[in-house]
This record gives sequence, C-alpha cells and structure tokens, in this order.
Amino acid sequence: MIEINEIHPNPAGIKRVAVLTSGGDAPGMNAAIRAVVRAAASQGIEVVGVRRGFSGLHRGEMHLLGPRDVANTIQRGGTILLTARSRTWRTPEGRAEGARYLREWGVGGLIVIGGDGSFHGGYHLQEEHGIPVIGVPGTIDNDLYGTDHTIGYFTAVETALDAVDKLRDTGASHERIFVIEVMGRHAGHIALDVAVAGGAEEVFIPEDEKPIESVVEIVKQSVEKGKKGSIIIVAEGYDGGAQAVGDAIQAGTGLETRVSILGHIQRGGSPVSSDRILASRLGEAAVYALMDGQKGVMVGRTSGGITYTPLPETWQNSKDVSHDLYRCARVLSI
Amino acid sequence: MIEINEIHPNPAGIKRVAVLTSGGDAPGMNAAIRAVVRAAASQGIEVVGVRRGFSGLHRGEMHLLGPRDVANTIQRGGTILLTARSRTWRTPEGRAEGARYLREWGVGGLIVIGGDGSFHGGYHLQEEHGIPVIGVPGTIDNDLYGTDHTIGYFTAVETALDAVDKLRDTGASHERIFVIEVMGRHAGHIALDVAVAGGAEEVFIPEDEKPIESVVEIVKQSVEKGKKGSIIIVAEGYDGGAQAVGDAIQAGTGLETRVSILGHIQRGGSPVSSDRILASRLGEAAVYALMDGQKGVMVGRTSGGITYTPLPETWQNSKDVSHDLYRCARVLSI
Amino acid sequence: MIEINEIHPNPAGIKRVAVLTSGGDAPGMNAAIRAVVRAAASQGIEVVGVRRGFSGLHRGEMHLLGPRDVANTIQRGGTILLTARSRTWRTPEGRAEGARYLREWGVGGLIVIGGDGSFHGGYHLQEEHGIPVIGVPGTIDNDLYGTDHTIGYFTAVETALDAVDKLRDTGASHERIFVIEVMGRHAGHIALDVAVAGGAEEVFIPEDEKPIESVVEIVKQSVEKGKKGSIIIVAEGYDGGAQAVGDAIQAGTGLETRVSILGHIQRGGSPVSSDRILASRLGEAAVYALMDGQKGVMVGRTSGGITYTPLPETWQNSKDVSHDLYRCARVLSI
Amino acid sequence: MIEINEIHPNPAGIKRVAVLTSGGDAPGMNAAIRAVVRAAASQGIEVVGVRRGFSGLHRGEMHLLGPRDVANTIQRGGTILLTARSRTWRTPEGRAEGARYLREWGVGGLIVIGGDGSFHGGYHLQEEHGIPVIGVPGTIDNDLYGTDHTIGYFTAVETALDAVDKLRDTGASHERIFVIEVMGRHAGHIALDVAVAGGAEEVFIPEDEKPIESVVEIVKQSVEKGKKGSIIIVAEGYDGGAQAVGDAIQAGTGLETRVSILGHIQRGGSPVSSDRILASRLGEAAVYALMDGQKGVMVGRTSGGITYTPLPETWQNSKDVSHDLYRCARVLSI
Repeated sequence: MIEINEIHPNPAGIKRVAVLTSGGDAPGMNAAIRAVVRAAASQGIEVVGVRRGFSGLHRGEMHLLGPRDVANTIQRGGTILLTARSRTWRTPEGRAEGARYLREWGVGGLIVIGGDGSFHGGYHLQEEHGIPVIGVPGTIDNDLYGTDHTIGYFTAVETALDAVDKLRDTGASHERIFVIEVMGRHAGHIALDVAVAGGAEEVFIPEDEKPIESVVEIVKQSVEKGKKGSIIIVAEGYDGGAQAVGDAIQAGTGLETRVSILGHIQRGGSPVSSDRILASRLGEAAVYALMDGQKGVMVGRTSGGITYTPLPETWQNSKDVSHDLYRCARVLSI
Repeated sequence: MIEINEIHPNPAGIKRVAVLTSGGDAPGMNAAIRAVVRAAASQGIEVVGVRRGFSGLHRGEMHLLGPRDVANTIQRGGTILLTARSRTWRTPEGRAEGARYLREWGVGGLIVIGGDGSFHGGYHLQEEHGIPVIGVPGTIDNDLYGTDHTIGYFTAVETALDAVDKLRDTGASHERIFVIEVMGRHAGHIALDVAVAGGAEEVFIPEDEKPIESVVEIVKQSVEKGKKGSIIIVAEGYDGGAQAVGDAIQAGTGLETRVSILGHIQRGGSPVSSDRILASRLGEAAVYALMDGQKGVMVGRTSGGITYTPLPETWQNSKDVSHDLYRCARVLSI
Repeated sequence: MIEINEIHPNPAGIKRVAVLTSGGDAPGMNAAIRAVVRAAASQGIEVVGVRRGFSGLHRGEMHLLGPRDVANTIQRGGTILLTARSRTWRTPEGRAEGARYLREWGVGGLIVIGGDGSFHGGYHLQEEHGIPVIGVPGTIDNDLYGTDHTIGYFTAVETALDAVDKLRDTGASHERIFVIEVMGRHAGHIALDVAVAGGAEEVFIPEDEKPIESVVEIVKQSVEKGKKGSIIIVAEGYDGGAQAVGDAIQAGTGLETRVSILGHIQRGGSPVSSDRILASRLGEAAVYALMDGQKGVMVGRTSGGITYTPLPETWQNSKDVSHDLYRCARVLSI
Repeated sequence: MIEINEIHPNPAGIKRVAVLTSGGDAPGMNAAIRAVVRAAASQGIEVVGVRRGFSGLHRGEMHLLGPRDVANTIQRGGTILLTARSRTWRTPEGRAEGARYLREWGVGGLIVIGGDGSFHGGYHLQEEHGIPVIGVPGTIDNDLYGTDHTIGYFTAVETALDAVDKLRDTGASHERIFVIEVMGRHAGHIALDVAVAGGAEEVFIPEDEKPIESVVEIVKQSVEKGKKGSIIIVAEGYDGGAQAVGDAIQAGTGLETRVSILGHIQRGGSPVSSDRILASRLGEAAVYALMDGQKGVMVGRTSGGITYTPLPETWQNSKDVSHDLYRCARVLSI
C-alpha cells in the first residue's frame, strides 16, 4: 500500500496566497491555477485570484477563489484569470499600489504564472515590498532556464504538428514545398520538436546561424531522392522568418513553394496531458514553496523532481536546444 | 429485411474507366477514388488511375487500380493519385495526347474529381474526342452549382472551426479581437458556416458588399455588451481580406487586434465522416452514370438524391450562400 | 448586398419563454440553448432556463438566462442546463406543479430540447395546461421523424469514426477482426454512417434482420481477398449486439476477434460544426415558432428548410435508414 | 553555429541490420522503424524488415527497407511491419530457423521494437545463436524498467484523456458517476496520468492495494462538496477492474453509476509528438548501439540521455509509479 502524506508543514505560517497569470496565455494555465487553489485548500490556505495579471493587481481586481470555482477548468485553454500587459506595473508607483492591495487582502505570498517578463515584474515587487513571490513557468516557448519544460509547450508543439501533418497532405499531393513558421521568438524548441516529429527536411532556429542558402541544396537533393513534397520548419526568431526561407527556395529551385505562418493557434486549445500534469505538479509545488518559506524562486521540474531557481537566473541564463535532437532531425531527413 | 440489388445495368457496355484528381486537393478525394475503384470492381469493370491530373494524362502516367490498391485510404487526406496544374492541357495538342492514351488503354469513360476548372478541362476532352466525362465535385470551397455540398467542404469547415476555437481561448484571455481569414476565393460558404459554428461577432463574404467600416461599430457594441474578445471571420475573397478588416478595427477602435490567415491547413487532414460518405456515394454514382450512358455531367447530391448537372452549368451558375444562415449569424451574435 | 431582416413578427405576443434540455445529453445542446436565448433577446423576449429537465421544472429550478450567460458555450459538450430523468413528471400532479411554475414566471411557451420521450413529456403539459410547447430534436441517435438530422448526431458519428480509425490501426497491424458496437438502440443511422465512412466490411442494424451467420462468410471472403484486418460495425439495437456477432465470427472462422463497445464517449465532446449550425438554426426557429403562434410541434430541418411536425408524429413514425447508403456500404466493402 | 557530426564510428563493422515489431502494437512503432531505417542509411548500413514479428522471422518473411519505403509513415498508428504472437518462437527449433534466416541475409544485429515479452524472445536468440539483439521499448503501458517512457505511452494517455473529457461532459450534465477503465495490466502509469490530467476524484492502480470500499466514502464526500458528476479511473490490472469499482459505488451510494472500458482504442491513432520524438531518438540510438558493439541491451531514454539496460533487467525489475504524482492526484481532487 502506498502511503500518502497529504499534509505539508507550514513553517512560514501562510494563511492566504494570491495567484495571477501574466504575459502571453498558454494552455495549461488553468490547470496551474486549479492546482494552486486546490493544493492550498487541502492545506487550509485561502487563495485570492487576481484578474488581468499585474494590470489588475495594481487596480485591485481580486476575489477569493475556492475549490469549486476551478471545477471543470483543467481541460480549458486560455486563462480564467485573464492576462494583460501593464505599463503601469513598470513604474514603482504601480507596484506600490499592487503591494498595498496584497497587504489589504492579507496575502502571504504571490504566485505568478507566466514567462520571464512576468517573473521580472514579480521580482521587483518582492524586492521593493518584501512580499514573497514564486514563479510558475507558463509559456509555450519553453525558453525558461530552470525547468525541463514549461506549461503550454507540449500543447503548442502538438498543435503545430497537427498543422504540419495537414500541410503534408497537400504538399505530397501537389509535390510542393511547404515552409512553415512556428512560434519561438528567441528559441528553437518548438521548431526542433516539430521538425523531428513532423519528419521535416530541414529546420531553421535562432540558435544556429546556418546560412539560408543551404536550404536550396537540401531541397534539391530531397527532390532527387524522390521525395514527394518537402516540409521546412522555421522558428519565428530565425532571421527573416519563413518568408525569407520560402523566397530563397523558390528563387533557388524554381519549385512551387508555399509559406504558412501558424501564428496564434499555437497558444490555444485544450491542454494535452503532459501540460496538465506539469501544471498540476508545479501549481501544487508553488503552494508548498511558500509554506516552506521560499521566496523569489521559480518552481520547475527536471528529471530529479521539483527544483527552485532564483528568479533572476531564469532570465539571465538561456536554455539550449538539444544538440542531439538537432542531429537526429538531420540524420532522419535522409 | 432490406433488399439490396448490387448489380447495376450496363447499357453503355463499359468495361474500363479512368479516374483522376485535378486542381487543389481536398480531403475525401481518396475516399472518392476508392469508391470509383470498388464500385467499378463490384460491376466487373476495371479502373485505370491517372497520376498528376491532366498533366499526367497527356503524358500517359496511368496504371490499373484494383480494390486492394485503395485499401486503408478512405481516412487519408490529400490524393494518392496526386494532382497538378497543366498548361499543356489547355492546348488542343495536349488534349489530343491525353485522348490517345485513354484510347490505348481502352477506356470507356473518364471520371474527373475536382472543381469547375477541372470540369472545364474534362469537358473539352469530351467535346473534341468523344470520350464520356463525368465530374465529381471535389473542392473545399463548396462553390459548385448542382450539388448541396462538395467533397472536402465539411473537413475544411471543421479545420477552420478548430482554429477559431483555439484563437478564442487567447482572444478571451487577452480580451483581444481576432480577425480570421478562411478559404473561399469566390464564395463565402466556409466563412459563413465557420462564423455561425464559431459564434463569431461578424462575417465578411464576397457575396455581400457590406462596407468594411460597419465592423468598427459592431466591435464597439460588442465590447460595450461586455464580451471578452471578439471573433471576426473573413472569406479570402472579400475585398482586402482579413488584413484590411483588421486594420480598420485597430484604427477605428484602438483595441488590440490580431489577424490570422489560416491558409492551406484547411485543405489537409483526415476527412470527416460527412466528406467520406459524400465521396463514397458520388464515386459510386459516377461509375453508374457512365454505365447508364451519361456523359458531360457532374454527379451531385441534393436532398432528393443523386443528380446530374451538365458540366457547363457548373461553371455558368453560382451557388448562393444561404440568406437564412446569414441572418442567423447576425441574430446570434447579439 | 444581402438584405437581412432581423425582426420577426410576433402575433402571439410572446414576452418570455422557457427552455430545458431533457433525456440523454447530446453535443450541440448548449448551442441550441444559446440560440434560443440570443434569438429571443434579439426580439426583445426574455428566456427562463429550467435546470435538470422536467425533474427541475416540477420543482421550480428556474432562472433568467441572458445573452452573456451563454457566452463561450457554443463549443461545449453536455448541457449547461443539466438533464435528468423524472418519474414525477409522468404523473398529472407533477405536470401540474410544472405548469404552475411556468405560469408564475409568466412564460408564454416552453422549448424542449431532447428526443421523443422528452417531446412526450412536453406534449402532455400542453394538452393538460395549454402552455405552448415546441420541440427541438436533440439526440445523438438521429431517430426522429420530421428532420433530416438531429442535434448531436454528427458529433456522435465523428467520435465513433475516430475510434474505428484507431482500432483499424491495431486491426491491420495484428490482422485481427474488430467488432465495434456503436449507439443506436432502435435505429441504425449511426452504425450505417460509421460503416461507410470507416470502410467497414459489414454492418448490422436493427432495421434489417440479416442472420448473424452471414458475417462469417463475409469475413472469410475478406481474408481470402487479402484484406489485413476487418472492421464490423454493429448497432447497439441489433439482436445480441456486438458480442454475439464477435462470438459468431470467432467460432465460425477461428480468427482472432476483438469486441469493442464504444459506449458513452459518443455522447460527449465539443460539437462538430454541423451540429452547432443545426442547433443554431433550430434554436432560432423554435423562438420564431412560438412568436408565430405555433404549438405542439417539433422544429426540424430538411432540404426544403425549416419544417414543423406535430409532436405525436415524431414518435408515431419512424425514420428509415437510407437504403441507397446501405447498398453503398456493401458495394464498397468489396 | 551548431556543429553536427552525422558520422557515427562503426567499430563493430555493421553492414546490415534487421528490425521487427513484436507484441501489442503501439503508436510510434512506425516512427521507430523509420528512424532505424534512416539512421542506418545515413551510416551506409542496410536494413532488413521482418514482417509479423518473431512469427515472420522463423518463416523468413523479410525484405530490404530503404529510406523511401518509410516515407510518410511517421504519423501513422500501428506498425507497417505487422506484429503477431508466435508459439513456435518459444521453441529452440523456431529460434534456430530465425537465426538461419538472419545469417542468410547477412545481418549483423537485430533490433526488436516491443515490450519485455518481445525482449525475452530476442534475448534467447542472442544467447543461443550469438546474434546481437538490441531492444527498443515500444508498449503503451510504460512498464519497462530502464527508460523514463516507452514509445506509445504518451499517445495512449492522450487517447484515454480525450475519452475522459468526453465522458465528463455527460457525467456533469446528468450528475452521474463514471468509472473508467484504462489499459495497464500490471502497472498504473496510464491510470495515474489520466487521473491527474482528467481531474479524477479517485484512481485505482495495481500497485496499491487500497480497499475498494474507500471509494464509496470519497464519492459521497464529492457529492457533498457540490461536485457535479465524478470521474473514477481504474487501471485494468486493479483487482476486479472498473466493473467491481462501479458496482461498489452503485451499491454504496445509490447514485447513478456508469462503467466505461476504453479498451483497444488506446493502442491506435496517430502518435503524439512526444512518442514520435522518443521513437526517432531510440530508433537512431539502436543503430548506433549495434555499431558500437553493444548487444543484449535495451536502449532507453532518461533525463541523462540515452541509456543501455541489459535485457534481463527490463523484466526482472519493475518501474514504480511516481508517489509524488499519486499524492498530487489525491490533493487536487479536493
């Protein structure tokens, strides 16, 4: 029989925590909110939900969130707490307003679900006003140091892959080249995964300064090998994006080339299981972190389990794409 | 007990038919090819598959297709016979070459799966060389007169709707406007269905010359009503497309507006049941039509059952969008 | 420019209507509720939502539903108004209670979304208490006379088809027979559509008393033809169900046979576009029907447009499966 | 610029390898076959595909597989090499036949994609005939020691989760209990993941001997908390399965309870990205392992990268479910 200890010690004496989502929305954010609310409830801690991220925080858009309020949300895309950008939060005055509201609500810590920009916003609050802040990595780009994966990443890859599978139908039928741009302004994680899983001929990522012309030779070879249609994946952050790559192919090979920019659909949709599970674990971990007296860290998950990374490290370091996987993409496109 | 008569009379004495797919690929084309091959086999008729549409026909890219060759294809997107554009086919010489190959193969009729451009190509062949041609409506746009729906249409709507559902997650979370362009160069069928099914605030179609400015008022009202995020659907063929509509909204309301052009993903993917069933019925009907001595007609399906429409009528007439549905879209966006 | 007249005449002087869902839930019920609420609102009519079907009606579980209350529901499976069975409603006393509540709320008509059992319940109410009742066909089985399709049917077929596609992967890999039971207690509509769209070898429906032994010969032939794996579809209502068919095949052929009963997953999921559109149209039509002074009819949709069928006819008549499609299933399984 | 070395040293002097799939099929097996074929081709090594697993091996059902033969297979469920059970292989004579064929084909090593039963079969071959065997973990159950995940597992979880999401629609609408049985004869990995991702109230796995009666109390509490409908997940290998759990709930609470056994659909479908990527990496690694002179090991993937586990360890050890995740499932069901 497996022993479960559901009670987590609470040396920090936390009685109430606040939670918000910030930055671009990511599938699984609701699962993370739900996990925060329910893990807290299981420990007798109350949760205050802040609407519209930091923008709502400095305006005091807050309300109590109970376990039933997050029922039937684990499978929902987007974020029930809404998200927004806030210029006011970048000012000390804005943050002071937010801190005032948090104190008024008697909150012992703030959980910020978002990317490194959002962690920045939270970190300033903690530095200036002493309110403990815990980051939960929620962004589709997977570009956060300190966790193997970020919440939303798996779903974004799946959505992009589904699109690639569809485009391949047309590419193969018309023996056409498709150049597909996926999200990733600063990182090629999505692009690389989609390239391997989609059986792409080539992938362009911001981490590698591979000259655009190389693709022309690759496409030519691929046609000579008898391939029907080719799929080229380009990360948004690669210089020039998919359009530049497509233009180069069209000019260099004369083959019919189509450019497809997948865009925002990659942010939406019901989260896949891996994102829901990761969000559930990290949401739970964030509550325990506050109870343990942690502050100014991001909870992450690596093979070894839950980890804490000081917030500044999440934006000072970058997370490399896997070179092994990059080789795998190349080797299997033979 | 339901009596089934599987034997269809064959006054035309057909022994062999050819089949090709032409124009843009559409989900369900494989189901139609399969139906042609198997319906023919069930009547003791052989089928010659032509690869790469008319382009392959004038080059003689042909081979026999048996019932096992189309096994496990009903669920596949694209077309196993490939498709291509052909300039040569637009010349009498090109068509003469095609006719020569068809006669060499002893073919008693040609089944063309595609849109009105493809039917045009087939019609010329019949006029000039006397080879009976039957059209099967395969195009995602649903813009063919003579059939309630075209093969591929249902899947395209479903794919676009899935994207709309995903974008709504983000739209609602950020309280943002999404302007989404769906396929339909000359017709608003996809756009209108997606608008109703996607719960859009507004839809722009080529059939209605509604001024672009009207959308600004609609979006403003929608915000006043308390709607979180708005979805606007624009058919590709509407003047200026989604970009123009998005620009107008951004300029007129100042609200954050995102434009998303869904593009070619709408052509791919495993066909939904309605497309597979329609393709199965029309592929079967095309074989029977040749056996009955029909020529120069498109087989279609309306509520009354299978219909024959002379090929020229398919491009001389247009199929209206439903005005009732157009009103429904408006009424339900309140 | 397409003229839209959004104002519907209201000779019946309707000011408020009630709506409920009853019987088994079906995907698209929420889209129908939304359409009722918004079509009513567009005509200045209020809507009272009744929770838990007739069971909630005789207990007075009612509340006003405005256009914003149904926001973001069109894509949701199940029914936000809940549904339940009610023994009390089968008694005159129970119905008198319900009528009393409806009068208290000042309701000019009741819209019942459900199947023929639910229409029965509504019809009694109208007969005994004079409250106009309009039926909206919501059931996955498609077994309602008076409409080409019922709300939920398209999604159920799609869900079952998706399962068939998945089972075929395994069936083909193991060269195994799969016997798959789909919903349809009294009708073979789902089974037949799934059989054609899934490329099944054989289909058993309640409408045809085909002896179970015939399947043995068909499966044997299918193996001789070189088919890898076979798919047999059985409607729930066929004598003995899938288990009996599977046992007969195993006993008669010695081939590895697996029985899969899809069950309740066919009721759930986000409705496909066809169900959302049908629900939107019929929900709108139900409101207009009350305004027109209709009572005791089901709104349906056939090729000709919206139709009214007296409620008793919906349960006194049955809707045949298409014999043409039945033949098509057989012909294409060659 | 990222340096890629595509050439792997070949001290073992491998010129040709054989590959087969064995045991229950799993989504991603085709991606693994493709990876073996293409990684080998990239190193100038030929690949012999064996059809129908060990059953085909002792009958010599073998053929060369080139890079184009595996085109367009990465997204396909099932296995293009087919799979089957073999009694003959359990005899020394059967294995001797297989060894003879492998030598005739000049094969320097055999790659077995499957579960521990299949590895057993391969191990005997190596022990008796000296042919190097490499195992690739392909089974949906994830119950193989020596790798964090097995190929097919992620897709199976996703398929089961999709079913749970659908059943919840009905469960919530009818306020009903659903007891859902997922695959896992000896292990609760799928069940636990699905429980957390599906927001289940309770999960029963073979690893924990929790008494069935405990569920009655949990369901009662869940109703008292105001939950609409409950989801209970049961692994196939839990004593009595879902039926026993469902019976206990019905008897103990009197609430309407439905049992749903998901069955074989969990094996099929297009593999999700995580399975395709894992399969690509492990297929590539298996080829390199043979080139490195490895034998009698399974290639696996853990956080640290590619690992080799002696085949006997894969069946002598068991892989625990995560106790942390088990607690998480409980905590979040509050």
